[in-house]
Amino acid sequence: MEIEIGRMGRQEKYKLLIGCVVPRPIAWISSISAEGVINVAPFSFFNVACIDPMMISVSVGRKAGGVPKDTARNIRETGEFVVNMVDVYNVDLANQTSADYPSGISEAEAVGLTLVPAKTLKVPRIGESRIHFECKLHQALTFGEPAQADFLIGEVLHVQVADELYRDGKIDIETFAPVSRLAGHSYARIGEQFERPRPVYPAEHR
Amino acid sequence: MEIEIGRMGRQEKYKLLIGCVVPRPIAWISSISAEGVINVAPFSFFNVACIDPMMISVSVGRKAGGVPKDTARNIRETGEFVVNMVDVYNVDLANQTSADYPSGISEAEAVGLTLVPAKTLKVPRIGESRIHFECKLHQALTFGEPAQADFLIGEVLHVQVADELYRDGKIDIETFAPVSRLAGHSYARIGEQFERPRPVYPAEHR
Repeated sequence: MEIEIGRMGRQEKYKLLIGCVVPRPIAWISSISAEGVINVAPFSFFNVACIDPMMISVSVGRKAGGVPKDTARNIRETGEFVVNMVDVYNVDLANQTSADYPSGISEAEAVGLTLVPAKTLKVPRIGESRIHFECKLHQALTFGEPAQADFLIGEVLHVQVADELYRDGKIDIETFAPVSRLAGHSYARIGEQFERPRPVYPAEHR
Repeated sequence: MEIEIGRMGRQEKYKLLIGCVVPRPIAWISSISAEGVINVAPFSFFNVACIDPMMISVSVGRKAGGVPKDTARNIRETGEFVVNMVDVYNVDLANQTSADYPSGISEAEAVGLTLVPAKTLKVPRIGESRIHFECKLHQALTFGEPAQADFLIGEVLHVQVADELYRDGKIDIETFAPVSRLAGHSYARIGEQFERPRPVYPAEHR
């Protein structure tokens, strides 16, 4: 089916994209406002942007009227944030922080999260997460005219991984038990895994 | 464990990132060189960048010596590409196109892919994929000094979804059967799914 996206509204585009680009890893981002209010919210338009230097990207949609979400505003104001990874143990807490709290309310406090000092930043880590990327803002873009999304690129300054997840420089995915986002209100665990070594050229291809 | 990333080499950073940021959706990208050679390769540093306008981002690592991969060079040269989504039916073909072919060789031909004309672009779609995003290059960034990755942001001009996947404006994920990337040579299917409606503020949180 050829889809004429030019005729679609925002909600229709949203449903199409979140159904097609799956599964998406989740960045549970802690940030802090200039006034010191700690904001926490999950975002799944997130991925690695560069290996070395270590960088990540996350897109934060604007609210109605083009108003930035607290996370985007805080990161632009303070230039720092922590990406806390989501797993089967903290996904319910992460989801609770996705409610549209007023800016002056800290989701961390409302939901009862454990805040842990970061090593390189003022903004704290979330204790209920076992992988933390401490990031400084490298570049902030907006897309749309007027702006519809803040696209934030962070350089990773420091990483913390719980001891039980980290073996010989690798992450044990079974112990990590990451959770991803699908369409609608759906989350998913990792399913059947299979290995496909990268072929070497020249090779037998067929 | 606090990880001092400043002391890590590129390969160590790579292993850490691809183990932590999981699962990653896969963009199987078709592009065309100025000379007309069609290039096909899969990339998992990929996600939605904006809903409306509909945009996606993909990071393409540079080769040794800072040389851009064919996909990045083609997209910069021609300003267009197609993101073909990967599923359980085409993942083996997609993986075969990840070999480091010489620039003059078309992976599409070597692997025996079916190329299908796009609706809005000169670069073809891959017939073995059932979801296509036809994209024009919106913005190209590089990260690192000297450049280590080409970060490409595409505006989606047109979308094609196989009829059997698209119902009432939504994608049927069971029929789609998407495949994601994990660390190492691992791929994964979608696992156990669960619903968590977005809470409304004020709400009972604990």
